Amino acid sequence: MPVATPISARDEDLANVTFNADGLVPAIVQEVGTGQVLMMAWMNDESLRKTLETGRTWFWSRSRQEYWCKGETSGDRQFVRQAFYDCDGDTLLFVVEQEGRGACHTGEHSCFYRAFGHGASTEAERRSAAPIGYGAAE
Amino acid sequence: MPVATPISARDEDLANVTFNADGLVPAIVQEVGTGQVLMMAWMNDESLRKTLETGRTWFWSRSRQEYWCKGETSGDRQFVRQAFYDCDGDTLLFVVEQEGRGACHTGEHSCFYRAFGHGASTEAERRSAAPIGYGAAE
Repeated sequence: MPVATPISARDEDLANVTFNADGLVPAIVQEVGTGQVLMMAWMNDESLRKTLETGRTWFWSRSRQEYWCKGETSGDRQFVRQAFYDCDGDTLLFVVEQEGRGACHTGEHSCFYRAFGHGASTEAERRSAAPIGYGAAE
Repeated sequence: MPVATPISARDEDLANVTFNADGLVPAIVQEVGTGQVLMMAWMNDESLRKTLETGRTWFWSRSRQEYWCKGETSGDRQFVRQAFYDCDGDTLLFVVEQEGRGACHTGEHSCFYRAFGHGASTEAERRSAAPIGYGAAE
């Protein structure tokens, strides 16, 4: 059973984060260990702080205009192990331990389950494209 | 010397991509092999097509309002090995072979070189936070 671990962020680091005109910043979620990119969603200042304070991922739903804590209803929770921001401060990266089936509401482990091209002509083939980017051992 | 390999995308897949009100979609770039998330930048429909057709990453600069091909001036080029889109079609993921120093204009290999918290009190300490998310062998 994963344990949520709060991250004590410095004010200096939080101040480096830049939100867009809607007060949002894109947050990439990557799986610890496998390195697989699981999903991308949006955070505002409050959901970023909740994420760091609780050690669970909190996002802002643009369609529903409300906070959501990943996995709170589905059980597919994310426990934050590391949190980064980029050179421009306008994108976040969270390395998480993914619980349950995975990150995608479709039941796929990652939301990025469909590939462009490389001769895959059916959805099944595109889904089964081997993800060569995951894991140094591959 | 890496070789650029075009990706033949199906119209059906391209049609699944959703652009925002500004005609843009966020594109995450991940390094093949290490799995390290290198950067995030924006693409429009034309730069997505150029990326797939040339096998190099092309983005749309919101500040300069122009196309840019990553590494064209710096030499830090990215050769696309796999391209994915997410369940909602509103985020892209490119797995690339990164040439040169790395993806970040600061000289860092990844743009996500600064971590929130975990007791790191100086910029040097925050930069040296071991990236536990990269590589299954770690």
